[in-house]
Amino acid sequence: MKAILLVAHGSRRTQSNDEVFSLADKLRSNSAQQFDIVNAAFLELAEVLIPDGIKQCVNDGATSIIVLPYFSNSGRHVVEDIPNIVSNTADQHPDIVIKIAPHLGASDLMMDLLIASADTAESKVA
Amino acid sequence: MKAILLVAHGSRRTQSNDEVFSLADKLRSNSAQQFDIVNAAFLELAEVLIPDGIKQCVNDGATSIIVLPYFSNSGRHVVEDIPNIVSNTADQHPDIVIKIAPHLGASDLMMDLLIASADTAESKVA
Repeated sequence: MKAILLVAHGSRRTQSNDEVFSLADKLRSNSAQQFDIVNAAFLELAEVLIPDGIKQCVNDGATSIIVLPYFSNSGRHVVEDIPNIVSNTADQHPDIVIKIAPHLGASDLMMDLLIASADTAESKVA
Repeated sequence: MKAILLVAHGSRRTQSNDEVFSLADKLRSNSAQQFDIVNAAFLELAEVLIPDGIKQCVNDGATSIIVLPYFSNSGRHVVEDIPNIVSNTADQHPDIVIKIAPHLGASDLMMDLLIASADTAESKVA
Protein backbone atom coordinates (compact mmCIF):
# COMPACT_ATOMS: atom_id res chain seq x y z
CA MET A 1 0.00 0.00 0.00
CA LYS A 2 1.39 3.36 -1.08
CA ALA A 3 1.04 6.42 1.14
CA ILE A 4 1.65 10.14 0.86
CA LEU A 5 2.46 12.09 4.01
CA LEU A 6 1.89 15.76 3.23
CA VAL A 7 4.22 17.71 5.55
CA ALA A 8 3.58 21.40 6.22
CA HIS A 9 5.37 23.77 8.57
CA GLY A 10 2.57 24.15 11.10
CA SER A 11 1.15 27.47 12.25
CA ARG A 12 -0.14 29.05 15.45
CA ARG A 13 -3.13 29.95 13.29
CA THR A 14 -5.56 27.03 13.42
CA GLN A 15 -7.16 27.96 10.11
CA SER A 16 -3.81 27.57 8.37
CA ASN A 17 -3.35 24.06 9.80
CA ASP A 18 -6.93 23.14 8.89
CA GLU A 19 -6.10 24.15 5.31
CA VAL A 20 -3.40 21.48 5.27
CA PHE A 21 -5.84 18.80 6.42
CA SER A 22 -8.34 19.96 3.78
CA LEU A 23 -5.61 19.83 1.17
CA ALA A 24 -4.74 16.27 2.28
CA ASP A 25 -8.42 15.31 1.95
CA LYS A 26 -8.52 16.77 -1.55
CA LEU A 27 -5.24 15.06 -2.43
CA ARG A 28 -6.67 11.73 -1.20
CA SER A 29 -9.59 12.07 -3.64
CA ASN A 30 -7.44 13.28 -6.52
CA SER A 31 -4.62 10.73 -6.18
CA ALA A 32 -6.73 7.66 -5.31
CA GLN A 33 -5.60 5.84 -8.45
CA GLN A 34 -1.92 6.12 -7.47
CA PHE A 35 -1.97 6.28 -3.67
CA ASP A 36 -3.95 4.26 -1.13
CA ILE A 37 -3.33 6.46 1.90
CA VAL A 38 -2.90 10.23 2.26
CA ASN A 39 -2.21 11.77 5.67
CA ALA A 40 -0.95 15.15 6.84
CA ALA A 41 1.68 16.10 9.41
CA PHE A 42 3.56 19.18 10.62
CA LEU A 43 7.19 20.05 11.24
CA GLU A 44 6.30 22.03 14.37
CA LEU A 45 3.64 24.11 16.15
CA ALA A 46 0.76 21.75 15.31
CA GLU A 47 -0.37 18.16 15.70
CA VAL A 48 0.25 15.61 14.09
CA LEU A 49 4.07 15.83 14.10
CA ILE A 50 6.07 14.00 11.41
CA PRO A 51 7.06 10.88 13.43
CA ASP A 52 3.42 10.30 14.41
CA GLY A 53 2.32 10.99 10.83
CA ILE A 54 4.67 8.27 9.57
CA LYS A 55 3.44 5.92 12.30
CA GLN A 56 -0.15 6.67 11.25
CA CYS A 57 0.65 5.73 7.63
CA VAL A 58 2.24 2.45 8.83
CA ASN A 59 -0.78 1.71 11.03
CA ASP A 60 -3.03 2.38 8.02
CA GLY A 61 -1.12 -0.37 6.19
CA ALA A 62 1.45 1.58 4.19
CA THR A 63 4.42 -0.37 2.82
CA SER A 64 5.87 2.68 1.10
CA ILE A 65 5.57 6.33 2.10
CA ILE A 66 6.33 9.44 0.11
CA VAL A 67 6.95 12.42 2.37
CA LEU A 68 5.70 15.41 0.38
CA PRO A 69 7.04 18.74 1.74
CA TYR A 70 4.41 21.47 1.43
CA PHE A 71 7.12 24.14 1.38
CA SER A 72 7.72 26.66 -1.39
CA ASN A 73 11.53 26.89 -1.05
CA SER A 74 14.42 24.59 -0.24
CA GLY A 75 15.17 26.38 3.01
CA ARG A 76 16.71 24.81 6.09
CA HIS A 77 13.44 23.06 7.00
CA VAL A 78 13.42 21.22 3.67
CA VAL A 79 17.11 20.40 3.30
CA GLU A 80 17.91 19.60 6.94
CA ASP A 81 15.02 19.39 9.40
CA ILE A 82 12.56 17.20 7.48
CA PRO A 83 15.21 14.74 6.17
CA ASN A 84 16.68 14.43 9.69
CA ILE A 85 13.33 13.76 11.34
CA VAL A 86 12.27 11.35 8.60
CA SER A 87 15.60 9.53 8.75
CA ASN A 88 15.41 9.13 12.54
CA THR A 89 11.82 7.90 12.32
CA ALA A 90 12.60 5.55 9.42
CA ASP A 91 14.99 3.64 11.70
CA GLN A 92 11.93 2.47 13.64
CA HIS A 93 10.24 1.18 10.48
CA PRO A 94 12.96 -0.79 8.64
CA ASP A 95 10.48 -2.64 6.40
CA ILE A 96 8.88 0.53 5.02
CA VAL A 97 10.29 2.28 1.95
CA ILE A 98 10.32 6.02 2.68
CA LYS A 99 11.15 8.64 0.05
CA ILE A 100 11.07 12.44 0.22
CA ALA A 101 9.69 14.52 -2.66
CA PRO A 102 11.22 17.89 -3.63
CA HIS A 103 9.87 21.24 -2.39
CA LEU A 104 7.02 22.83 -4.37
CA GLY A 105 9.21 25.34 -6.22
CA ALA A 106 11.13 22.49 -7.87
CA SER A 107 8.04 21.53 -9.88
CA ASP A 108 7.74 22.40 -13.56
CA LEU A 109 4.11 23.25 -12.85
CA MET A 110 5.00 26.13 -10.48
CA MET A 111 5.25 28.64 -13.36
CA ASP A 112 1.73 27.87 -14.55
CA LEU A 113 0.46 28.06 -10.97
CA LEU A 114 2.11 31.46 -10.32
CA ILE A 115 0.81 33.01 -13.54
CA ALA A 116 -2.71 31.65 -12.92
CA SER A 117 -2.54 32.92 -9.33
CA ALA A 118 -1.46 36.41 -10.45
CA ASP A 119 -4.52 36.51 -12.71
CA THR A 120 -6.79 35.97 -9.70
CA ALA A 121 -5.37 38.87 -7.65
CA GLU A 122 -8.31 40.86 -6.38
CA SER A 123 -7.73 42.39 -2.99
CA LYS A 124 -7.07 45.96 -3.96
CA VAL A 125 -4.86 47.86 -1.57
CA ALA A 126 -4.89 51.61 -0.85
CA MET B 1 3.02 48.85 -17.40
CA LYS B 2 2.01 45.79 -15.40
CA ALA B 3 4.34 44.34 -12.77
CA ILE B 4 4.50 41.24 -10.60
CA LEU B 5 6.31 41.42 -7.27
CA LEU B 6 7.01 37.86 -6.18
CA VAL B 7 7.18 37.95 -2.36
CA ALA B 8 8.86 35.10 -0.47
CA HIS B 9 9.53 34.75 3.25
CA GLY B 10 13.30 35.16 3.09
CA SER B 11 15.78 32.70 4.56
CA ARG B 12 19.11 32.79 6.38
CA ARG B 13 20.14 30.29 3.70
CA THR B 14 21.41 32.28 0.71
CA GLN B 15 20.68 29.44 -1.71
CA SER B 16 17.01 29.56 -0.77
CA ASN B 17 16.84 33.31 -1.48
CA ASP B 18 18.70 32.84 -4.76
CA GLU B 19 16.02 30.32 -5.74
CA VAL B 20 13.43 33.07 -5.42
CA PHE B 21 15.40 35.39 -7.72
CA SER B 22 15.83 32.52 -10.22
CA LEU B 23 12.10 31.85 -10.02
CA ALA B 24 11.41 35.55 -10.69
CA ASP B 25 13.73 35.39 -13.73
CA LYS B 26 11.88 32.34 -15.02
CA LEU B 27 8.52 34.00 -14.32
CA ARG B 28 9.68 37.09 -16.25
CA SER B 29 10.33 34.94 -19.33
CA ASN B 30 7.17 32.89 -18.96
CA SER B 31 4.76 35.76 -18.30
CA ALA B 32 6.24 38.32 -20.73
CA GLN B 33 3.01 38.44 -22.74
CA GLN B 34 0.96 39.49 -19.71
CA PHE B 35 3.47 41.32 -17.49
CA ASP B 36 6.12 43.90 -18.36
CA ILE B 37 8.05 43.76 -15.08
CA VAL B 38 8.77 40.92 -12.66
CA ASN B 39 10.75 41.57 -9.49
CA ALA B 40 11.28 39.64 -6.25
CA ALA B 41 11.19 40.75 -2.63
CA PHE B 42 11.20 39.23 0.85
CA LEU B 43 9.10 39.60 3.98
CA GLU B 44 12.17 39.39 6.22
CA LEU B 45 15.72 38.05 6.61
CA ALA B 46 16.82 38.94 3.07
CA GLU B 47 17.13 41.89 0.71
CA VAL B 48 15.11 43.29 -1.13
CA LEU B 49 12.35 43.92 1.42
CA ILE B 50 8.76 44.46 0.23
CA PRO B 51 8.66 48.30 0.37
CA ASP B 52 11.86 48.51 -1.68
CA GLY B 53 10.54 45.86 -4.07
CA ILE B 54 7.42 47.95 -4.69
CA LYS B 55 9.58 51.06 -5.15
CA GLN B 56 11.72 49.13 -7.64
CA CYS B 57 8.62 48.20 -9.68
CA VAL B 58 7.52 51.86 -9.69
CA ASN B 59 11.00 52.99 -10.75
CA ASP B 60 10.89 50.40 -13.54
CA GLY B 61 7.73 52.12 -14.81
CA ALA B 62 4.96 50.01 -13.28
CA THR B 63 1.48 51.55 -13.18
CA SER B 64 -0.06 48.43 -11.65
CA ILE B 65 1.57 45.88 -9.37
CA ILE B 66 0.40 42.41 -8.39
CA VAL B 67 2.02 41.26 -5.17
CA LEU B 68 2.29 37.48 -5.54
CA PRO B 69 2.88 35.73 -2.19
CA TYR B 70 5.19 32.74 -2.62
CA PHE B 71 3.72 31.08 0.47
CA SER B 72 2.04 27.68 0.58
CA ASN B 73 -0.51 28.48 3.34
CA SER B 74 -2.62 31.41 4.43
CA GLY B 75 -0.71 31.77 7.71
CA ARG B 76 -0.22 35.01 9.60
CA HIS B 77 2.41 36.24 7.13
CA VAL B 78 -0.09 36.03 4.26
CA VAL B 79 -3.22 37.28 5.98
CA GLU B 80 -1.67 40.01 8.15
CA ASP B 81 1.99 40.84 7.59
CA ILE B 82 2.12 41.14 3.79
CA PRO B 83 -1.19 43.07 3.46
CA ASN B 84 -0.10 45.46 6.24
CA ILE B 85 3.30 46.16 4.69
CA VAL B 86 1.82 46.51 1.20
CA SER B 87 -0.93 48.80 2.46
CA ASN B 88 1.54 51.06 4.29
CA THR B 89 3.80 51.20 1.24
CA ALA B 90 0.88 51.82 -1.12
CA ASP B 91 0.16 55.09 0.71
CA GLN B 92 3.42 56.40 -0.74
CA HIS B 93 2.38 55.47 -4.29
CA PRO B 94 -1.20 56.74 -4.63
CA ASP B 95 -1.18 56.58 -8.45
CA ILE B 96 -0.22 52.91 -8.61
CA VAL B 97 -2.87 50.16 -8.54
CA ILE B 98 -1.63 47.43 -6.18
CA LYS B 99 -3.37 44.08 -5.77
CA ILE B 100 -2.41 41.00 -3.74
CA ALA B 101 -2.79 37.50 -5.19
CA PRO B 102 -3.82 34.54 -3.01
CA HIS B 103 -1.34 32.09 -1.43
CA LEU B 104 -0.15 29.15 -3.56
CA GLY B 105 -2.41 26.58 -1.89
CA ALA B 106 -5.49 28.48 -3.09
CA SER B 107 -4.70 27.59 -6.69
CA ASP B 108 -6.65 24.88 -8.53
CA LEU B 109 -3.32 23.77 -10.00
CA MET B 110 -1.86 22.81 -6.59
CA MET B 111 -3.35 19.29 -6.76
CA ASP B 112 -1.66 18.56 -10.09
CA LEU B 113 1.59 19.99 -8.76
CA LEU B 114 1.51 17.87 -5.57
CA ILE B 115 0.75 14.64 -7.43
CA ALA B 116 3.45 15.33 -10.02
CA SER B 117 5.88 16.19 -7.23
CA ALA B 118 5.10 12.95 -5.36
CA ASP B 119 5.95 11.04 -8.54
CA THR B 120 9.44 12.59 -8.57
CA ALA B 121 10.33 11.56 -5.00
CA GLU B 122 13.74 9.96 -5.11
CA SER B 123 15.78 10.59 -2.01
CA LYS B 124 15.46 7.25 -0.31
CA VAL B 125 15.75 7.39 3.46
CA ALA B 126 17.13 4.65 5.76
